[in-house]
Amino acid sequence: MRNVLIILAHPNLANSQINQALLNAVNKNDKVTIHDLYSIYPDGVIDIDAEQQKLTDADAVIFQHPFYWYSAPAILKEWLDLVLQFNYAYGPKGEALKGKQWLTVLTTGGSKNAYSTEGHNRFTIRELLTPFDQTAHLCGMEFLPPLVAHGARNLGKSPERLKQLCDQYQSFITELQSDDFDSNTVNHLEILNQRWEQ
Amino acid sequence: MRNVLIILAHPNLANSQINQALLNAVNKNDKVTIHDLYSIYPDGVIDIDAEQQKLTDADAVIFQHPFYWYSAPAILKEWLDLVLQFNYAYGPKGEALKGKQWLTVLTTGGSKNAYSTEGHNRFTIRELLTPFDQTAHLCGMEFLPPLVAHGARNLGKSPERLKQLCDQYQSFITELQSDDFDSNTVNHLEILNQRWEQ
Repeated sequence: MRNVLIILAHPNLANSQINQALLNAVNKNDKVTIHDLYSIYPDGVIDIDAEQQKLTDADAVIFQHPFYWYSAPAILKEWLDLVLQFNYAYGPKGEALKGKQWLTVLTTGGSKNAYSTEGHNRFTIRELLTPFDQTAHLCGMEFLPPLVAHGARNLGKSPERLKQLCDQYQSFITELQSDDFDSNTVNHLEILNQRWEQ
Repeated sequence: MRNVLIILAHPNLANSQINQALLNAVNKNDKVTIHDLYSIYPDGVIDIDAEQQKLTDADAVIFQHPFYWYSAPAILKEWLDLVLQFNYAYGPKGEALKGKQWLTVLTTGGSKNAYSTEGHNRFTIRELLTPFDQTAHLCGMEFLPPLVAHGARNLGKSPERLKQLCDQYQSFITELQSDDFDSNTVNHLEILNQRWEQ
């Protein structure tokens, strides 16, 4: 069974009903690790060696965070800047992450319709995620379509939608853990949620 | 004369020949302020009220930083997350930044050719900047094409190219300070540098 590392970046997890629900849905086995950056590093000082070891041990990495200004909270940027070093994650000797999957799990305030050329946010989620997409690519990782909890503020009022999302998250981690996961089955999707909604 | 605020985010400015050269080229008058986040906030704790006051007083804002993982160093993300508050920068009462220009001034390791669909980085600079573009848009700001110092590591060996870039920076700040700046003259450009190179 493959190792899945969930890097969580939420500065106020206690107030995020949706992120908590998602974390509760995560598969409970010793090959799934939830790694909560704000809780582990309250002063924001990241232990680069420890983080690299965790990454090296993982077969797939999930980055779970709210979509703050169309990107991740600052601690995840700090983590990327420090941990994904030259000749570790990229560069001639940087092969530590090659072939691992990168899945972004996002909560957004805006609705699905807001993320389109015609919508309030003018760009699709995939367009806004290009910096992470290309970061993954440079490290030889497979960037998967993101799993997105749109309209997170109202999702608590729709227990069925929330349960559906949690089930999707859990199913996908099960797939990531299995040896026969094939990213070609999802690569063409705008967001991973569509896999179960088509 | 209009106020121009330069928000600088470079964790190791002493080692960045190009960022130093660019800063040296900046217009020396009392309406241009260089605001160096890493130097002002060595512990990363940002004074939100002071930052909002600076922003409110500015007519145009320049964000100058290296392109770390296709985005800004973490301190600038922290700054955006904290300073651009609901009902200050956006939301029904959030009109403090309306009509101000946003210019990104970037240094990249990669060459100009690396930033294209066919290039090493697979996306254009503008595509990678969509999170900042839409952040500016949501705040009612005008997002200008970025001024980019491509191949920054080798730029020090090309004094003429570096001087040209510094001259472009200085000219553009002069224009931003003048009352008759018209963003329509640059909006169609991929990067601002093209204004002087066509």
